[in-house]
Amino acid sequence: MQSRSGLICLNGALRRYLCSLPTSEPNAPLMRTEVPGPESKKLKEGMETIHQATSVKFFVDYEKSFGNYLVDADGNNLLTCAVSRPALGGYPRTDFVQLLKNSLGEVAPKGLEHAQAMLCGTSANENAIKTAFIHYQTRKRGGKPPSQEDMDSCMKNEIPGTPNLSVLGFNGSFHGRSLGMLSITRSKAIHKVDIPAFKWPVANFPRYLYPLAENKKYNDEQDKNCLEDVGKLIDAGKQKGNEVAAVIVEPIQCEGGDHHASPTFFRGLQKICQEKGVYFIVDEVQTGGGICGTFWAHEQWELPTPPDFVTFSKKLLTGGYYYKNSLRVNEPYRIYNTWMGEPTKLVLLEKIVQIVKRDQLVNKAKNIGNSLLVELNKLEKRYPNMLKNSRGIGTLCSFDMPNPTIRDKFVDTAINLGLHIGGCGNSTIRFRPALIFEEKHLETTVNLLETAFEKMKPFDIQFSDDF
Amino acid sequence: MQSRSGLICLNGALRRYLCSLPTSEPNAPLMRTEVPGPESKKLKEGMETIHQATSVKFFVDYEKSFGNYLVDADGNNLLTCAVSRPALGGYPRTDFVQLLKNSLGEVAPKGLEHAQAMLCGTSANENAIKTAFIHYQTRKRGGKPPSQEDMDSCMKNEIPGTPNLSVLGFNGSFHGRSLGMLSITRSKAIHKVDIPAFKWPVANFPRYLYPLAENKKYNDEQDKNCLEDVGKLIDAGKQKGNEVAAVIVEPIQCEGGDHHASPTFFRGLQKICQEKGVYFIVDEVQTGGGICGTFWAHEQWELPTPPDFVTFSKKLLTGGYYYKNSLRVNEPYRIYNTWMGEPTKLVLLEKIVQIVKRDQLVNKAKNIGNSLLVELNKLEKRYPNMLKNSRGIGTLCSFDMPNPTIRDKFVDTAINLGLHIGGCGNSTIRFRPALIFEEKHLETTVNLLETAFEKMKPFDIQFSDDF
Repeated sequence: MQSRSGLICLNGALRRYLCSLPTSEPNAPLMRTEVPGPESKKLKEGMETIHQATSVKFFVDYEKSFGNYLVDADGNNLLTCAVSRPALGGYPRTDFVQLLKNSLGEVAPKGLEHAQAMLCGTSANENAIKTAFIHYQTRKRGGKPPSQEDMDSCMKNEIPGTPNLSVLGFNGSFHGRSLGMLSITRSKAIHKVDIPAFKWPVANFPRYLYPLAENKKYNDEQDKNCLEDVGKLIDAGKQKGNEVAAVIVEPIQCEGGDHHASPTFFRGLQKICQEKGVYFIVDEVQTGGGICGTFWAHEQWELPTPPDFVTFSKKLLTGGYYYKNSLRVNEPYRIYNTWMGEPTKLVLLEKIVQIVKRDQLVNKAKNIGNSLLVELNKLEKRYPNMLKNSRGIGTLCSFDMPNPTIRDKFVDTAINLGLHIGGCGNSTIRFRPALIFEEKHLETTVNLLETAFEKMKPFDIQFSDDF
Repeated sequence: MQSRSGLICLNGALRRYLCSLPTSEPNAPLMRTEVPGPESKKLKEGMETIHQATSVKFFVDYEKSFGNYLVDADGNNLLTCAVSRPALGGYPRTDFVQLLKNSLGEVAPKGLEHAQAMLCGTSANENAIKTAFIHYQTRKRGGKPPSQEDMDSCMKNEIPGTPNLSVLGFNGSFHGRSLGMLSITRSKAIHKVDIPAFKWPVANFPRYLYPLAENKKYNDEQDKNCLEDVGKLIDAGKQKGNEVAAVIVEPIQCEGGDHHASPTFFRGLQKICQEKGVYFIVDEVQTGGGICGTFWAHEQWELPTPPDFVTFSKKLLTGGYYYKNSLRVNEPYRIYNTWMGEPTKLVLLEKIVQIVKRDQLVNKAKNIGNSLLVELNKLEKRYPNMLKNSRGIGTLCSFDMPNPTIRDKFVDTAINLGLHIGGCGNSTIRFRPALIFEEKHLETTVNLLETAFEKMKPFDIQFSDDF
């Protein structure tokens, strides 16, 4: 607690902690147990219940370590000639398992208690897909490990060790900006142009007419056609010897323009994947974390069984993915890297999750999101030339404007009134408020939107007939 | 400063800082300037001198921001409906430019004052390569932006917008574990097997005999053959319509087994790249940061001009790459992501760089590395059946053991004596001590290595004839 005089009174625990920190190196290693010792082994066992730990060598107490010496979980003080830099994949913190449980473990989607931490959304998707490839090939081998021929040929990027497998994505999707993820991403040409890509198949994603209630027949047809498209592409891949190992899909195509699809569509998609033996990856990098009014958007689909993978980043601070227990990778160094997520992000996430639960922020996002959508529909009636297709799940709301130029001008007008909104897709305005967005913020937002629309009035704005 | 009684006396600056933090939201936005205002524009201009800023919208003072409101660099207090999560690529911190200058700017390789921050080594390599592809295609278009045909075809992953370009790597290399980087990585089969890959060309990397002084002719031949290999593969790519846009190479193939190559080899490699119009990317993820006795390993090659790209991560804490000014990407959102590095890592790096310079740690690494290599050569004479090929630059030293089983047993023996060393490649022991590794640590290390070799003596160990 801070006083006016500038003195801070430490509580006992913090004082004891500060006094416990080492201030010098030992003169020589000090060994108490074998390495890894019983404590490291116990932690590794615990880690396996939430996060694969096959590549972990031992756990390190970085607070007790000093200089060139590492103190492991068993109190062994080792002279290290091996760790001149972060190596969290091999040597996690002693509190890493507890951190994982208190953060990612607390918000795991139903049926997916295993998480894999990564640094960002792109590496989350990359590694979920790698895991899908590994399991697809393992299944083809009847569960056996790769043969010597596999091991030899993969070093030359040749079959059978380097298989001709693909991932099916959707037009309008965004899954990241690495070479691999750009091969699936179909959001905007400027993201993709000039970059080589895997020749992987792409299916159509529903494009709905709004309001939904008045366009049920058209929209149902969209679902049906897109699902047929998926089935045909998977079959075609099999015939061409370029099998589809996984389908990856966003609950809402955010970057591509906030394109929604119905729970029926997603249930149908999972069903096709299951029938055809293809892994079903849900990319919740944008939708996860509560903004949709449930912690994960896919909770609203009422799937009969969980997706095979759910990937995340952004609002979760750390990247990563959840996966079914059956999709563990048992060999070390196949799913691995220097960082394996970032413990400092888990510390922050632990606190965030506590507050989200304490203040019931996910439920609040659902309610305030409903109100936001009601207001957008009202604005649509008042300014029919300027906005249409208001849509949203939770506070993840959006509407379309007549063209990119007008949309960009609107964003600019709003921000200069003090309202920070963003664009996505071609001519869409998207709302991505924080979970602490309340009634009073909504009121200010609507007032400022109105003012912005009024300011746009002098311009000749209308939707073209074929919009 | 902390006293025994548990009281901490804050200095004036820290007290003023704590008192300046906001404790509530404003009732409504408060606008002082247009957005982006003059201060954001000035920061963006400053950022352009060290880091591309084309996708930056405005700079945010996150310390002054509270709740749903963002305070920008000009003191505008904006209600945000757009930033519910990290978005550092579009809205960097107001001190980001200074942080970049104080950290990455302080250790930029000669001739490469532009840096691009990323989260990890894989994304560093991915984005350096993307930049190479973009410039390769732009050059082919005579400097023009992509055509409409390019933009349309890339959305279908088809030529000409999605070009058939490749990156040439080397046998034994390691550049990361994404699908793209695994296509170049040729370290170990277990990293690659079951994962689809781009069919990109791979050249041989020198495999030297040691000691170097006694094997000059053989090793020079290695350099020559490998360089010829590179030239032929680039020419073959051109003929097959699968042009090589970039060559990526590690100064030492670390993960692959600490394979070294001579400055002559690297100068020759750069020359071939220049002659053939191929970008030259040096992957210093493992070698950068001072361990080689110079801050960057490539400084020791005496190149006539800088490499086109130098990538880094690990000891630099943040990932990223340096690049030539001529290799900027001027369009926004081509080289971009949510994070664009991690400012907290730059804060740590700033301090680390200060200490590395203050304590002349790079020079110390050079000297202690020389001593380590002398000691390894002595051990080689004492235990000729157990180790050979001692080699090293700075403290990045290693030796080979007869086979993987013996190597693994040796690592295990050493660690249970309190010496933490690691393996790489097939049967190599690698040293990666910290920059604060001193004479006394070396002494302990050598004693423990000796004890470990003695403990291995009862086993029948020797090199096979064809090792």
